[in-house]
Amino acid sequence: MSKYWSKLVASVEPYVPGEQPKDRNYVKLNTNENPYPPSTQVLEAIKATANESLKLYPDPNGEELKRTLANYCGLKKEQIFFGNGSDEVLAFAFMAFFDPEVPVLFPDITYSFYPVYANLFKIDYELIPLKDDFTLPVEQFFKPNGGIIFPNPNAPTGEYITVEAIEEILHHNQDHVVIVDEAYVDFGGESAQSLIDQYPNLLVVQTFSKSRSLAGLRVGFALGQEELIQGLERIKNSINSYTLDRLALAGAVEAIKDEAYFQATRNKIIRTRERVSDELGKMGFKVIPSKTNFIFISHPTVKAEELFLKLKEEAILVRYFKQPRIDNYLRVSIGSDIEMDRFLEAVRKITAG
Amino acid sequence: MSKYWSKLVASVEPYVPGEQPKDRNYVKLNTNENPYPPSTQVLEAIKATANESLKLYPDPNGEELKRTLANYCGLKKEQIFFGNGSDEVLAFAFMAFFDPEVPVLFPDITYSFYPVYANLFKIDYELIPLKDDFTLPVEQFFKPNGGIIFPNPNAPTGEYITVEAIEEILHHNQDHVVIVDEAYVDFGGESAQSLIDQYPNLLVVQTFSKSRSLAGLRVGFALGQEELIQGLERIKNSINSYTLDRLALAGAVEAIKDEAYFQATRNKIIRTRERVSDELGKMGFKVIPSKTNFIFISHPTVKAEELFLKLKEEAILVRYFKQPRIDNYLRVSIGSDIEMDRFLEAVRKITAG
Repeated sequence: MSKYWSKLVASVEPYVPGEQPKDRNYVKLNTNENPYPPSTQVLEAIKATANESLKLYPDPNGEELKRTLANYCGLKKEQIFFGNGSDEVLAFAFMAFFDPEVPVLFPDITYSFYPVYANLFKIDYELIPLKDDFTLPVEQFFKPNGGIIFPNPNAPTGEYITVEAIEEILHHNQDHVVIVDEAYVDFGGESAQSLIDQYPNLLVVQTFSKSRSLAGLRVGFALGQEELIQGLERIKNSINSYTLDRLALAGAVEAIKDEAYFQATRNKIIRTRERVSDELGKMGFKVIPSKTNFIFISHPTVKAEELFLKLKEEAILVRYFKQPRIDNYLRVSIGSDIEMDRFLEAVRKITAG
Repeated sequence: MSKYWSKLVASVEPYVPGEQPKDRNYVKLNTNENPYPPSTQVLEAIKATANESLKLYPDPNGEELKRTLANYCGLKKEQIFFGNGSDEVLAFAFMAFFDPEVPVLFPDITYSFYPVYANLFKIDYELIPLKDDFTLPVEQFFKPNGGIIFPNPNAPTGEYITVEAIEEILHHNQDHVVIVDEAYVDFGGESAQSLIDQYPNLLVVQTFSKSRSLAGLRVGFALGQEELIQGLERIKNSINSYTLDRLALAGAVEAIKDEAYFQATRNKIIRTRERVSDELGKMGFKVIPSKTNFIFISHPTVKAEELFLKLKEEAILVRYFKQPRIDNYLRVSIGSDIEMDRFLEAVRKITAG
């Protein structure tokens, strides 16, 4: 605390990302990164852009990237907003679409950045408790609110609702913006983007960090009707005209273009997830059905915190959330098959112990 | 305007960056970019980082970059904050240090992003008129306020105040944060960073966009005592944990290390600026003395707007601000000697008219 801080900065509770320890070489299954490298097309495009052009500002509107994604998605480029990772997109969306007076709704167990944004921008919120099986109680979102945000699939549970369920939520909430955070949708879910034409209040947010293996490049985006996109652009252009550097713009274009690589890697991750879920089920674990690149698991006898600490001793990092309802679960990112075999072996040893 | 916009987004007036037209090949002297390429060390480091590591999140704290700059500046790494360009750093500083109630002070003629930030975060401000010769009226900042921000050298005038004058401002304002925006200080000014140890309310902001030829990489930073830096970190970590991607982190480290190249290019720009200023003076222009990589000029008979338009016809872009007090001036970035010779030749032709 400092006498020079604004009331705002004194009141915020910043987000804490998953640990990135450097003391030893871990099997890193704690931040939902992709185990496979980015497409070589992406790497080549970045190298080709590492030239004299870096002396010049990037295109503040990312026109080429928007055109490329528009073509891929079947949307207009005016229906696309890019940001420095989907976290920045989400922060701007809180500013652009939510007002302080009427509470916005989001699940009690969800991406822990949402309450951080709400606190920062002084936006009231009401937590909607997930059902006991961690599924989203869709009808609980049919009440007066100032906006809605939820991840689909949800994090850290991996649970998924159908596009039909999302449409029900949209149908009951036509006066406020509904943000569907699809950070993990490429691992087996169906995007709500097919509803954009019909619902002017729908904003779909996605990222290149997971399914495109580009967490280190910082590229996220939002899809929606032009009015919503213009709202995001107005916030962005009141903070920073150039949020994506030239290298990120160039790399992201190629990530979209290399569809074959994208399909191959996400399918590999899905296959590994299914295999590991089966193995863990056989060991007696409860495994929440996942449509993401992570699984959310609980053991009948070994406490999650104990398992977390013992895995760390074995140089395997997973994510443990010490919070109500989920403090006996671990979130485990899906790594390569070799990494997951090491994980399974360690778990077998610890739970047999 | 959309019914889905928040009151906030409806009320903002976004910043408009200098135009980046693509219709023909311009001599671009309108956005204060550096005419020289980045250091080859920077480009090599970026290429070397364009590898599998991009699948992993960047270091959210940029430890290596902070250590490198700390070593260069003679500060501790805890006294350094990095952001996605200095615009993001400035936006976060408005949030971290300024409150809505008491107006912050900044010059009437200055970086036009300041009122945009103030409007976005609902912070009152009072404009301090520059003197007739565009110098900063230092004593006008000795009055009650909620914080102070000004560029030194100022933009778009290029005028500069001494470190002693900044110390006077700090001395008279020990209860609020004073932000000195040094985007252009490397072109002949002296940084106020020598005052950081003595003044816990001083925040110095700089950028890699101008003197390090890296506008396309998006790297800016702030220097100050730890309490202020922690305030900025709290805001950043409430918006986006990873604002600098792996490529920007790697490139920025090398930009600091290649001191010889930095010195050589900034000295070339200073020499070109002095030569061009002399030539324009001989042609009858009023040239405000500049310590930046641009000059602010006015012709006794040819109106600035006319000159701006005629230069554009000659494929030379400069910046014209249609606003009170400066609407008969042009801001001209210092390009290479060849570019500036083309500019001088065009000006000579137009003003000979």
